[in-house]
Amino acid sequence: MGRTSDAKEKIISAAQTLIELRGYSALGVAEICKTAGVPKGSFYYFFESKEALALAVIDEHWAAQERDWTRILNSDAEPLQRLRRLFQETEAAQLAGQQTCGTVSGCLFGNLTLEMSNQTEAIRKRLQEIFDAQVDMVETVVAEALEGGEVAVADTRDAARSVVAQLEGQVLFAKLYNNTSQLSVLWANCLALLGARVPQEQAARA
Amino acid sequence: MGRTSDAKEKIISAAQTLIELRGYSALGVAEICKTAGVPKGSFYYFFESKEALALAVIDEHWAAQERDWTRILNSDAEPLQRLRRLFQETEAAQLAGQQTCGTVSGCLFGNLTLEMSNQTEAIRKRLQEIFDAQVDMVETVVAEALEGGEVAVADTRDAARSVVAQLEGQVLFAKLYNNTSQLSVLWANCLALLGARVPQEQAARA
Repeated sequence: MGRTSDAKEKIISAAQTLIELRGYSALGVAEICKTAGVPKGSFYYFFESKEALALAVIDEHWAAQERDWTRILNSDAEPLQRLRRLFQETEAAQLAGQQTCGTVSGCLFGNLTLEMSNQTEAIRKRLQEIFDAQVDMVETVVAEALEGGEVAVADTRDAARSVVAQLEGQVLFAKLYNNTSQLSVLWANCLALLGARVPQEQAARA
Repeated sequence: MGRTSDAKEKIISAAQTLIELRGYSALGVAEICKTAGVPKGSFYYFFESKEALALAVIDEHWAAQERDWTRILNSDAEPLQRLRRLFQETEAAQLAGQQTCGTVSGCLFGNLTLEMSNQTEAIRKRLQEIFDAQVDMVETVVAEALEGGEVAVADTRDAARSVVAQLEGQVLFAKLYNNTSQLSVLWANCLALLGARVPQEQAARA
């Protein structure tokens, strides 16, 4: 049992690394197993297909990211400060990835959305659920900020979706230019998108 | 000569359609030639490699989009109205694509950025040039709006990049949910990001 789970975990971990580096379509099962250091025969013992593996990679990555987002967005800090923390940690994580791999790998969910969502409905559906969950979490914080009179938004859902869209767009640029420094604008842009009542100078200093 | 150019154009056009549907890595030269209706042997007469074809597809797509963006962003309309027009035409183009193919194909440059930029430096560089050019064009309009006192931005470059990032992020969602309606928020979000002096109600009606 110990060794079995271990092989499955090794396959998922190798696949995640390879997908972050090169996307999904470019990968073959043989290469994944070689990187994982497991016999190719064992792949289909754990996974019905490469698509099933991709779903497992997505789920595992989201389980970890959901824990992080929950810790940050459900904290006791002021609502807008929680969002600020989310951007800071996102920038730090992209920078850490760049220092490890040499390149900014971007957001796994964004990457797979643009590569895969029109190809397999199972992956599209899973990615929709994840982005829905992200927008839900941000929306809860925006609604709290709205109640506290800190922001002025007409529709908390649209506002939360726009904050996440800005995050995805800026992470796309961080990947394209292999440079995370532009992510520092996320906080000021979030305040602008939310019509936040924070003096410009404070936003600029943040 | 007529027939030669025709075959090359057919390959580029087939590749563009297939890349929009399924990305780059998932495609093979044989499939592209079959879709184009040209003999496989002719591929390497026109293109050194699949990567060379991808660059030709990118260039041809940008040539057309650059014409559109120039027409819209260099028009005689008020600066902010030109940006509004850009979002309207982007939404209309994504909707037209959905009506033709059944799915929102998103932005070819954004798709290839997330799929390919960490894999081939030639493609990364070309995509950087294109996004630089897009940001340049938006920045010129933002600078005009700033001069006219219509917006309040600290840095026109950051502001223009954020407007394009918001566009890419929302187009990503349009593709993921196969729904272009969310793109209607682009205008209000652009005004917010630029600190535009436009009454909220006017932005909401727009």
